[in-house]
Amino acid sequence: MKISDLGEFKLIERIRASLPPPPASVVTGLGDDTAVMRPTPGAYLLATCDAQVEGRHFRRAWYTPYQIGRKAIAVNLSDIAAMGGAPRYALVSLGLPNDLDVEFVDELYRGLVDGATPFGAHIVGGNMSGASEIIVDVTLLGEADPARVIGRAGAREDDVVLVTGNLGAACVGNDLLALDRPAPVSPGAREFCLRAAQTPTPRVREGQIIAQSGLAHAMIDVSDGLAADMGHICDASRVSVRLFAEPLPIATETVEVAFAVGRDPLDPGLHGGEDYELIVVAPRAGAPRLIELVQSQTGTPLTLIGDIIPAQEARTFIRGNGRMIPLHARGWNHFK
Amino acid sequence: MKISDLGEFKLIERIRASLPPPPASVVTGLGDDTAVMRPTPGAYLLATCDAQVEGRHFRRAWYTPYQIGRKAIAVNLSDIAAMGGAPRYALVSLGLPNDLDVEFVDELYRGLVDGATPFGAHIVGGNMSGASEIIVDVTLLGEADPARVIGRAGAREDDVVLVTGNLGAACVGNDLLALDRPAPVSPGAREFCLRAAQTPTPRVREGQIIAQSGLAHAMIDVSDGLAADMGHICDASRVSVRLFAEPLPIATETVEVAFAVGRDPLDPGLHGGEDYELIVVAPRAGAPRLIELVQSQTGTPLTLIGDIIPAQEARTFIRGNGRMIPLHARGWNHFK
Repeated sequence: MKISDLGEFKLIERIRASLPPPPASVVTGLGDDTAVMRPTPGAYLLATCDAQVEGRHFRRAWYTPYQIGRKAIAVNLSDIAAMGGAPRYALVSLGLPNDLDVEFVDELYRGLVDGATPFGAHIVGGNMSGASEIIVDVTLLGEADPARVIGRAGAREDDVVLVTGNLGAACVGNDLLALDRPAPVSPGAREFCLRAAQTPTPRVREGQIIAQSGLAHAMIDVSDGLAADMGHICDASRVSVRLFAEPLPIATETVEVAFAVGRDPLDPGLHGGEDYELIVVAPRAGAPRLIELVQSQTGTPLTLIGDIIPAQEARTFIRGNGRMIPLHARGWNHFK
Repeated sequence: MKISDLGEFKLIERIRASLPPPPASVVTGLGDDTAVMRPTPGAYLLATCDAQVEGRHFRRAWYTPYQIGRKAIAVNLSDIAAMGGAPRYALVSLGLPNDLDVEFVDELYRGLVDGATPFGAHIVGGNMSGASEIIVDVTLLGEADPARVIGRAGAREDDVVLVTGNLGAACVGNDLLALDRPAPVSPGAREFCLRAAQTPTPRVREGQIIAQSGLAHAMIDVSDGLAADMGHICDASRVSVRLFAEPLPIATETVEVAFAVGRDPLDPGLHGGEDYELIVVAPRAGAPRLIELVQSQTGTPLTLIGDIIPAQEARTFIRGNGRMIPLHARGWNHFK
């Protein structure tokens, strides 16, 4: 059945029936035009918004409807994670071609819910409209302890730069999807990089632990690529940075796939977007404790990859052979 | 200059520079991935989201970029108004074709800001992506006094139904825009109906006064048409309704244009969407006071147009000649 056969109101009713019950803080959830929530007393309100557009962020041949939904919520969870916040409420605005199957929307929502629920986020509202391509536009609201919210602007000279997890896998995973024939890679490496691209895991718990530790000065998630997002911290904090190739956490699977698709693994490591890892800037003295905290409570590695230098020095990337090269952002431009 | 020449980051910077300064409650506004706000202690959080999609909600030939922006925020303000809430923060997610002129986006944002500012709403975040058609997706956050928030579910038997302003003008205004040749209507009538379609005024102040009065049981804004939106109140409140043709506030200008485009004026009055008036359900005894309050404080008329009857009775519309006809929703289906 096509969504044009079912109609807007029946489709909304169908979605509403599929959602888990909202938490007690939701006074009026999906169904009214406006959702009503009871804020946590004393908390800051966080709000972020990010869209996944067919043909720009995904193709139907590459991602299942479930993966599209899950990723659409993950990219927003990642922004709340970078503030050290707790995700709470999502509004989902869909643009849908008329000839789309109802099952596609069912699966999309299953992905949205599966992506949101483990992190404490609930869908409380949204919108639907016809559109030429599939658009999944999510606004995510969160809450944060005012004393512990972390932005981009707090990096200081002599701080160190750390990053969670590993870099570049999603980028080469998308490279694999874009190939018109199978690449010569091991099933394990293929699976690892495809999973990074198709079902990224936002570092929500890690962000909260980092914020609550009081040990970090600045944080951002890697959505445009390490170099670009590190650049955002430098711009906002009026500092510069020196990153080292040697410790960059690039998984062996990513290295294998990068070589198979003809790329230097450092390239997706530095410039591959959609990693959804967290870049953390912290005083050098607290870094070992921070690494230990995140690793012990979440199992996620936190790796020291560079340091903050005065603003007047150039942003540099130091390769294994000691060669210094300029660190330029080469992020995603949506209007290229 | 095209937006693809300017690029995403410069476009965002350009927009940021054009925005008015945020209120003191905004800790981190536009520029970070996540906005941070200080909620008003004790207030409920409201959230709504509505998109304007080119070819579905507007055409570039019919609406200026300024009008598109202003309307995109107005339709969301209207949803917050229907709760009796105070609009506070907007997130604007744009889908933009690559070949769009930068001036188009400038004007779109000027409309968004001009639409938001008079009602106390500030743009704190957003997103931009390429897309085949122009999409302006707004999420609006508001606040409300928990003791005074009004939903759809409170209508009771013997309550009366009132509506602000006038109905049907936007609908016939859009009819005029869709004609391929000028309709034989007076300039005043044309102007009145075009303005209703192109720059609707959300009834924010009226909604707040109605909520604060404590005299209303239910409220909704007219976005899908009087019959459809009245139906939403009946569904949520488990009641039925009887509306009267005689008092329906249809402006003489709307009547003139309706006849010129070959429609019975009651048709846009009952089924024309996009009026963005408020339907209010209130106890009969309090209605005169409510009408007086809204009229005296805002100048907006509030007209008694029907009453609430038991759920088992049919939803009816009573024409001037006493003929009763079934009141069916004939609202907008986005997937037709």
